[in-house]
Amino acid sequence: MSFRRNRTLIKTIIDNGIKKVFSKVTIKGWVQTIHKNKQLFIKINDGSSLFDLQIVVDKEHEDKYSSIIDELTPYASIEVNGIIVKSESEEEIEIQLNRIKLLGKIDSTSKYIFSKKKNTLGYLRKVPHLRSKNKLMNILTSVRNKVTIATHNFFQDLDFKYINTPIIKSYNYEEDENKYLTCVSNLHLEDISHGVGDVYTISQIVGAESCMVESSIVFSTIDDVIDLAEDYLRSVIYNIISCCRDDLDFLEKNIEKNLLNKLLRTANQDIKKISYDEAINILISVKDQFTVNPKKGCDLNLEHENFLTKKFGTVIIYNYPKNIKSFYMKVNKDNKTVASMNLLVPNIGSIIQGSEREDNYEKLFNKIKESKLEEEKLSWYLDVRRYGTVPHGGFEMYFEKFIMFLTGVKI
Amino acid sequence: MSFRRNRTLIKTIIDNGIKKVFSKVTIKGWVQTIHKNKQLFIKINDGSSLFDLQIVVDKEHEDKYSSIIDELTPYASIEVNGIIVKSESEEEIEIQLNRIKLLGKIDSTSKYIFSKKKNTLGYLRKVPHLRSKNKLMNILTSVRNKVTIATHNFFQDLDFKYINTPIIKSYNYEEDENKYLTCVSNLHLEDISHGVGDVYTISQIVGAESCMVESSIVFSTIDDVIDLAEDYLRSVIYNIISCCRDDLDFLEKNIEKNLLNKLLRTANQDIKKISYDEAINILISVKDQFTVNPKKGCDLNLEHENFLTKKFGTVIIYNYPKNIKSFYMKVNKDNKTVASMNLLVPNIGSIIQGSEREDNYEKLFNKIKESKLEEEKLSWYLDVRRYGTVPHGGFEMYFEKFIMFLTGVKI
Repeated sequence: MSFRRNRTLIKTIIDNGIKKVFSKVTIKGWVQTIHKNKQLFIKINDGSSLFDLQIVVDKEHEDKYSSIIDELTPYASIEVNGIIVKSESEEEIEIQLNRIKLLGKIDSTSKYIFSKKKNTLGYLRKVPHLRSKNKLMNILTSVRNKVTIATHNFFQDLDFKYINTPIIKSYNYEEDENKYLTCVSNLHLEDISHGVGDVYTISQIVGAESCMVESSIVFSTIDDVIDLAEDYLRSVIYNIISCCRDDLDFLEKNIEKNLLNKLLRTANQDIKKISYDEAINILISVKDQFTVNPKKGCDLNLEHENFLTKKFGTVIIYNYPKNIKSFYMKVNKDNKTVASMNLLVPNIGSIIQGSEREDNYEKLFNKIKESKLEEEKLSWYLDVRRYGTVPHGGFEMYFEKFIMFLTGVKI
Repeated sequence: MSFRRNRTLIKTIIDNGIKKVFSKVTIKGWVQTIHKNKQLFIKINDGSSLFDLQIVVDKEHEDKYSSIIDELTPYASIEVNGIIVKSESEEEIEIQLNRIKLLGKIDSTSKYIFSKKKNTLGYLRKVPHLRSKNKLMNILTSVRNKVTIATHNFFQDLDFKYINTPIIKSYNYEEDENKYLTCVSNLHLEDISHGVGDVYTISQIVGAESCMVESSIVFSTIDDVIDLAEDYLRSVIYNIISCCRDDLDFLEKNIEKNLLNKLLRTANQDIKKISYDEAINILISVKDQFTVNPKKGCDLNLEHENFLTKKFGTVIIYNYPKNIKSFYMKVNKDNKTVASMNLLVPNIGSIIQGSEREDNYEKLFNKIKESKLEEEKLSWYLDVRRYGTVPHGGFEMYFEKFIMFLTGVKI
C-alpha cells in the first residue's frame, strides 16, 4: 500500500477553488471560530493553509448534530464530511456539512487563555500546545520550512555538498579569554572542504534554539564569498516571495508595513559595498545621533548598523579591523584589516558574516599564539594548512535573524 | 556580480566527456597519484567526482615545470591549465598540461601515513585532514548528501513541513529508571503537528554524532505509518540508485558484493509484514541457531533480526509487546501489544521504528504513572491530549544505519 491521506488538505481545497464545486470531501482539523447568523458557520484549519475553511451547517444538520455542536469550542478537533459549494460571494468556496464527528474536545477546566488577543508570542513560548495552533506561529513554521528548502536548493544547484557537522565541537575557542565573533561549525567545514570540495550545513546551536547556515568554498577569495552571499540572499528572498506570498500579505497587513517592497528592494538592487573605513567615517561625521559613539577600530553596534541601512538599504561592509574579528580570518596586506564581510539588512543589522580564511600555516600558527588560544587543541585545524592547503573562504548566516527580516516578526 | 567558480569542476569535465575535446580548462584540486611511463601522468581530484582526472605532462612541460613537479606528492594541492584531449583508449578524456602551479605542498616532516592501504576508517576517524581526502569517506559524504536531499524531497512532495526541534529537550525520559526505546524529537514533533499538520525533521543527537529522520502524521493510524515508512524507504533507495550509481558500483566492487541487487530487491518488492507473535514463533522453532534464546515477550536482538531478514528479505514486524516499547505508544485492544512497527533490513536489523501514539489523555496519564515517569515534566506533552487531541503516529529512522545499508560500509 502507498501512503494516502484519509482526508483532503484544506490547502488543496482552497487552491482548487471553484474548480471542484460539488465534490464530496472529508476534512479533519481544528475549529477556529464558531458563529451563528442565519445559519451556523464553523471555521476550520488543519495547518496546511494560512486560510481557514468555512463549514456551513443548515438547520437540519444543526439539529441532527446538536449534541456535538454544543461541545465545540475553538481548537477542538473535528472530522467533517461535506460538499464543496460556492459561497454567497460566488468567488470563494465553503463546505456544506453532511456529517460531523468530534475527535478531541477542549478540557473545560482549562487553565489556558484561548483568546487570540491575549496570546502574545511571549506567552505562547511557554505553552507548546497553544503555540502550534497559533496562526502567526504557523506562518513562521511555513516560512522557516521554505527557507530551509530554498537553502538546500541554492547550494545543491551549485554542487555544494550538505554536511552534518558535530554538535559538540572538539574545541570551543570562544570560551577562551579572547572573545571572538560567534561562529559554529565553520572550522569543521573548512577541514572537510579540503578534499570533498565546496560544502554547506544548516547547524543547530545547542541551548540557543537557533540555527546557522554555514558554507566553505575552496579555491576562493573574499570576492567569491561576497558574490555567493549576495546570490544566496537574493535566491531565498525570491523563493519566499513566490512560495509564501499569502503569508507575506498577512504579515504586511498585521506586522510590518511595506514588507514586500523591502524584500523586493533588497533582492532587485545591486547591494552597495563599502569598506569598514568608509562606514566608520560616515558614522563619525554624524556621531551626535548615537547613544554610543562610533570609534575607529571598534565594532559597529545595532544603532550604527541601522543608520547605514537607512542610508544605503541592505549593505555589505568589508575589510573590518583585524582585532575585532576571528583569528582564522586572512589578514590583508595593510596588516590592519582582515578579508572579511558583514551583510547588514534594515532594522536587523548584520545577518551574514563571511571571510577569506588564513590558508598559510605559519601565519595561522602565529595568530593562534598571539590570540592565546590552545594550539594543541587546534592542531587538526592547523594540519589543514600543512597538507595541501588552498585559498578558501566561507560565510555564516544567522537563520533566525533572516526569518525576522523576511517576516517582520521579532522572534 | 554573481558567484562563478574560477575553475571547472572535474565532475563537469567527466560528465561532458569527449563532447568538449580541445576546450581549455582550469582545474584545481589535490594530487592523487603521480607516475611516469613514457610520459608523466598526474591524477587529480577536487571532491566533485568519484573519478580522478588524468593530467598528461609532455617532456617539454615536464622540464619547464620540473621544480614544481619535484615537489608533488599525493594530496598536494595544484592548479592546472590545459586542454581536454581524448585518451589513448579514445573513450575517455584527459588533460594535456599547459601550466601548473603548486598551491599547497605536503609538510615533509609529516607524521601521518599517506599509504591508502593503511588508512583504515578507524585510523581516518582520528585524522580529520586525511579523512576529507579519502575516497571512501568522499563517497559516504556524497551518499549522505543525497539521502538528506531525497528525504526533504519525499516529505515536501507530501506537504509535510520541516521542523527544527530543540537539541536540548525539556525532559529526557530515557534517563529515568525505566529504559525506553531510543527516540529523540518525536514528542516535540507530535506537539507541533497538532496545529501545523504533518511534520518531519532530521535531528542530530548530541554527542552521538548521528542523526534521526523523524515524522509525525496527524489523523492517522499505524497503517498510515507503515505505508509512509515503506514509501519513504523505497523513494530514497530509487533516488540513490539514480543519483549515486557510480558510487554504488564502486562500493559493490570494493565493499559489498551484490549491493545493487540487494537495494533493488528491497525497493521493488512488496515488503513482507508479520506480527511480533508470528516472528517470535518462527524464531523459537529454530532457537538452537542462536547464542541468545528468543523468548516470547522479549525484544529481538540482531541475530534474531538477521534470521528474519535472511528468510524474508526486508521485513516489517508489527504489534510488539507493550512492555518492551515506549510509554507513548497506543496499546492495542488485546491490552498486551502496542500499535508499533519495526522495519528490518538485511544485516543491519531495525532501521525504522514507528507507532501510533496514545491520543487519549487518561490512558497516557496512567501509562506515565505506571512507568514512574515524572508527569509534571511531561505535562506539556499530556496537554496535547487535553486540547483537540487527534489520532496520530509517526516513525523514526536511524540515518547512519540506513547509510550502512545503502553503502555496505560499517560506519
